Amino acid sequence: MSIAVVGSIAFDSVKTPFGEREQALGGAANYFSMAASLFSKVNLVGVVGEDFPQHHLQFLQERGVDIEGVQKNSGKTFHWRGQYGFDLNEARTLRTDLNVFAEFSPKLPVHYRHAEIVFLANIDPTLQLHVLEQVHEPKLIAMDTMNFWIESKPEELKEVIKRVDILFINDAEIRQLAGENNVLKAVRKVQGLGPQTVVVKRGEYGAVLFCGMQCYFAPAFPLEELFDPTGAGDTFAGGFLGWLSRRNHDFTYETLKEAMLVGTVMSSFVIENFSFDRMKNLTLKEVDARCQVLQTLTSGPTKLYFS
Amino acid sequence: MSIAVVGSIAFDSVKTPFGEREQALGGAANYFSMAASLFSKVNLVGVVGEDFPQHHLQFLQERGVDIEGVQKNSGKTFHWRGQYGFDLNEARTLRTDLNVFAEFSPKLPVHYRHAEIVFLANIDPTLQLHVLEQVHEPKLIAMDTMNFWIESKPEELKEVIKRVDILFINDAEIRQLAGENNVLKAVRKVQGLGPQTVVVKRGEYGAVLFCGMQCYFAPAFPLEELFDPTGAGDTFAGGFLGWLSRRNHDFTYETLKEAMLVGTVMSSFVIENFSFDRMKNLTLKEVDARCQVLQTLTSGPTKLYFS
Repeated sequence: MSIAVVGSIAFDSVKTPFGEREQALGGAANYFSMAASLFSKVNLVGVVGEDFPQHHLQFLQERGVDIEGVQKNSGKTFHWRGQYGFDLNEARTLRTDLNVFAEFSPKLPVHYRHAEIVFLANIDPTLQLHVLEQVHEPKLIAMDTMNFWIESKPEELKEVIKRVDILFINDAEIRQLAGENNVLKAVRKVQGLGPQTVVVKRGEYGAVLFCGMQCYFAPAFPLEELFDPTGAGDTFAGGFLGWLSRRNHDFTYETLKEAMLVGTVMSSFVIENFSFDRMKNLTLKEVDARCQVLQTLTSGPTKLYFS
Repeated sequence: MSIAVVGSIAFDSVKTPFGEREQALGGAANYFSMAASLFSKVNLVGVVGEDFPQHHLQFLQERGVDIEGVQKNSGKTFHWRGQYGFDLNEARTLRTDLNVFAEFSPKLPVHYRHAEIVFLANIDPTLQLHVLEQVHEPKLIAMDTMNFWIESKPEELKEVIKRVDILFINDAEIRQLAGENNVLKAVRKVQGLGPQTVVVKRGEYGAVLFCGMQCYFAPAFPLEELFDPTGAGDTFAGGFLGWLSRRNHDFTYETLKEAMLVGTVMSSFVIENFSFDRMKNLTLKEVDARCQVLQTLTSGPTKLYFS
């Protein structure tokens, strides 16, 4: 199954207690594509400026990412500058230069429009809706968002949420979106809006899959060395949907649980180094090995007896 | 197997966004005993003041808790006053009156000294050591501690840690204890001090069992209504060690994983109401039912295929 993704392509300048990197390749759609392309054909929609080096696009192409949907507009590429403290849990944004991204209007090439899985990365909900108008009955639509849109465009955001199957969101955001401090109650409210599947991301504490009334907890993969959490959430979504694309219309709870582990493992790799450094040569064999470990770490006791 | 526990018996005055309670029965040793006594004979060591009502002690006795080790000293009972915000994750201590607890010197009645499991709740490490001098070759020693002792008595604390089999500690504390921000590295350092089993408590994010080089993640039981997290950690330990006491010298990794689920479930009950209100009539059948649910929530996919 093919996947279409719409979102940011960016330069990231990131500083962590373990080092810093200037103008590295970043952006939600990029991180998603890098991860998902290990599993599937990915159709990327985004915008770059005139300063965007050709070799970055070539690099994506070599990974099997279709870049026909990447517009090159006059001006500079979106640039994000951020910093992390020792706990690496939350980024402090130092500067955001939207540049060409400010006027971005996603246009899907004709052959993208029949993509069976669509991922709307974190962009203006108006643009997310605009993408949904261009696709022809995808089998699965998933989305991400952030506090900025929850605050500034709540109505448009709810329109998008209504139309998706899976919402990826972090715990602070779902509390804010639902106006409800208890995460479980917040999820029930959001399910009431539309999507029956909600994946609540909790950073170093892993992620929780809510699927109808069922739920499944996946811890983060335990690592002794973390360098840069930028892109972890989008890489998670890329691994998650990439795995689903291999399961060919089997979007059952069992398959979603598998996708949780694959997403978790993919994000564990990306944070081991800056930008895409760890992802560049990542093989399915390495992903597989870490999935086996994670399965072991999460496999509980078989039975308790209380008689 | 019998369990001896040494720790605080207190009055707690607690305020949460959902209500408040004045001078309710509390204290680490109490919470532990209430939970463990559902599974095992519990020998309680602690101190109360002249103001401590007889009916509280009777109540513990009715639960099968041996209270011969509870000293009644002249003065007032330990009193803690605290407050929680909406996220219920961290208590803000408004006032601590140690009262009779300030001069507490634990003395184990002769028939306690052969307890097979010993739990040193969060008290001065000098007193914890004093308890270890009084017991005769227990099969298992577990302990808890807090930031106050990590800062004020690091050497004494390490002496205790060296001699225990299981350390219960929260994630901020183990980072502080090890002087290491990465939790996995911090655990390895602490294992280097002595205990091969470390249980890292993470509040609403559950707990992680580290047992030698193995680890197992248990999420918190998802609840829509939480009232008061006071005592959750000690109730967890009570359920955990209570379950082990039923497993009769089988302290394998498999059994420890079971204990993680039982501890998690026990703490999920205590936080549903103030003080011991929910625990008073709690039955093994209710614990069993919730353990079954938790097993389901944590049971991952059986196999992923990456070919």
